[in-house]
Amino acid sequence: MDESPFLTSEEREAGRARKREAVLRAAVRMFNERGFHATSLDDVATSLGVSKPTIYHYLGNKEQVLFECVARGLDQLHFAANEGRSHAGTGLERLRSFLRRYAEIIMDDYGRCVIRTADETLSTQSAAKFRSLKKRIDGELREMISDAIADRTVAPLDVRLTAFALAGALNWSARWYRPEDGITATVLASRLVDILTAGLAPREATDAKLPRKRKSTGVSV
Amino acid sequence: MDESPFLTSEEREAGRARKREAVLRAAVRMFNERGFHATSLDDVATSLGVSKPTIYHYLGNKEQVLFECVARGLDQLHFAANEGRSHAGTGLERLRSFLRRYAEIIMDDYGRCVIRTADETLSTQSAAKFRSLKKRIDGELREMISDAIADRTVAPLDVRLTAFALAGALNWSARWYRPEDGITATVLASRLVDILTAGLAPREATDAKLPRKRKSTGVSV
Repeated sequence: MDESPFLTSEEREAGRARKREAVLRAAVRMFNERGFHATSLDDVATSLGVSKPTIYHYLGNKEQVLFECVARGLDQLHFAANEGRSHAGTGLERLRSFLRRYAEIIMDDYGRCVIRTADETLSTQSAAKFRSLKKRIDGELREMISDAIADRTVAPLDVRLTAFALAGALNWSARWYRPEDGITATVLASRLVDILTAGLAPREATDAKLPRKRKSTGVSV
Repeated sequence: MDESPFLTSEEREAGRARKREAVLRAAVRMFNERGFHATSLDDVATSLGVSKPTIYHYLGNKEQVLFECVARGLDQLHFAANEGRSHAGTGLERLRSFLRRYAEIIMDDYGRCVIRTADETLSTQSAAKFRSLKKRIDGELREMISDAIADRTVAPLDVRLTAFALAGALNWSARWYRPEDGITATVLASRLVDILTAGLAPREATDAKLPRKRKSTGVSV
């Protein structure tokens, strides 16, 4: 039997999603490269060989496109936090696993855009959503640090400041990482996390000799 | 003898410098608060009760004012690096002293502006100068890390990545630090540096037992 020349609604939906994705990817790269203010949706449209109304159709105005980009990056981070939490191992191992993935995301397009976007670039409403999504990731990071302190694989540090220090060190890669330098994001992420977490374990002289508890729940990977 | 009603050239110069300083301080605070693109020199002028031409007279156009602000912040960091290098103590002690001051500067107006300003906000010419001033600080930080590795108070880490990790963790405070939270920048800077440098020393099992050299040159403080 010949295939139907008509697209099914699933195929239409999939095509739409691919187009939306292509627009978003082109936009985020231009925002990251030139800055939001120096980028116009006309440039994005031209780079894709489509018209500006096509972009409006898929994603809305420039500020809405930017919000989509940062929301995408924050979703990736949130997903990574869920993944990290479900790992087997000690609290420190789970934290390190999350941080490695976090760094990889920050070195990629959408994560980079999260870091390069100041709240005030967005509309008041989007900025509030942006802050709340960032707050969620911050909460997840703090929770993983607290868990690692609880199972004694991390020293009893100030959780809030430790979260700021770790996230900050990784966030900053959005400013200096260049894929063309030849080292992959995965390798850099792993090295950065090694440097950053080397000092988190308890000092030998204090509570390091207390028994370490391994997490019994969660999915073994 | 009555004082002369005329200002000496030194007094005129000092008055000029104070006015320039007041304009710069008002501008940097608005840039940090609202973002560069949402700030007009009219707003800065209004906040000081002066006219926009007065600001042009002292500092030039908005982009020139921004460059002055970031150059000021980078000068403070450069000064801190020189101070840090001249301290007595081990390489790690000098590095820690520099990092504490670095963090304080980043939490203050001009340092914060350095971090919040993306290269592409500046003119091509200013952006090149901005990058070269940032590169100087990065070089100074790397040198201090190398010195600490050389005198064995820091483990033989990847110098470039360690510099990015340390600077990034401190730079990020430009995004989260709020003076109104009640903890001073000095206290926060010190706690952040403790967290960040706890893991830099060599592991006991490796080269920690080799003799540590103290720097013999430099000004004792």
